[in-house]
Amino acid sequence: MTPEDAQRLLAENRAKIDGLDRKIADLLNERTRMVEDIGRAKTVLGTAVQEPRREENVFRNVTTHNKGPIPDDALRRIYEHIMLEMRALQGMQREPDPK
Amino acid sequence: MTPEDAQRLLAENRAKIDGLDRKIADLLNERTRMVEDIGRAKTVLGTAVQEPRREENVFRNVTTHNKGPIPDDALRRIYEHIMLEMRALQGMQREPDPK
Repeated sequence: MTPEDAQRLLAENRAKIDGLDRKIADLLNERTRMVEDIGRAKTVLGTAVQEPRREENVFRNVTTHNKGPIPDDALRRIYEHIMLEMRALQGMQREPDPK
Repeated sequence: MTPEDAQRLLAENRAKIDGLDRKIADLLNERTRMVEDIGRAKTVLGTAVQEPRREENVFRNVTTHNKGPIPDDALRRIYEHIMLEMRALQGMQREPDPK
C-alpha cells in the first residue's frame, strides 16, 4: 500500500464510519423508545427496572449471533455500557423501586 | 394499561429489542472491519492509533444527528466506550506507537 493509497483508504473509511455511526445511533434511539415502553409496562406490573436474568438474555442474544471481528467479551462490555445508560434513563422516568 | 396489556407489551418489545440488538451488533462489527483497515493505513502512514481530533469528530457526528430520546451526553458516553473497545482491538494488531 502506497502512502497515497493509505491516505485515500483512511478518508474513505472514515466517511463510511460516519454513515454507519448515524445508523447505529438511530437504532440505539429506537431501542431506547422500546425500553421506555417497557418501563411503563413495568410500572403497571410493579416489577423492578433492573432484571439480571433479562440482561443475561440480552448478552446471550448478541454474543450468540456475533459473527466478529469483535470478540464476544468486548461486545458484551459494549452492551453492558449501553444497558447501563438506558437503565439510567428509565430510572429518571420514575421513582426508585422501594423494594 | 391492564396487567395483561403490560405483559404483552413487555414480551413484544423484548422480542423487537432482540432483533434490533442483532442489527446493532452487525453494524458494530462492520464498523470494526473499517477500523481495522484504518489501522493498516495508519501503519503505512506511521500515525498513532489514537487521534483525539478524529474522536471529537466522531462524537460530533453522532450527537449532531441525534434525534433522541437518548440525550447527547449519554450517546457520547456510549460512543466513548465503543471507541475504547475498538482502539483496544486495533492496538492488539500492532506494537504500541513509540512516540
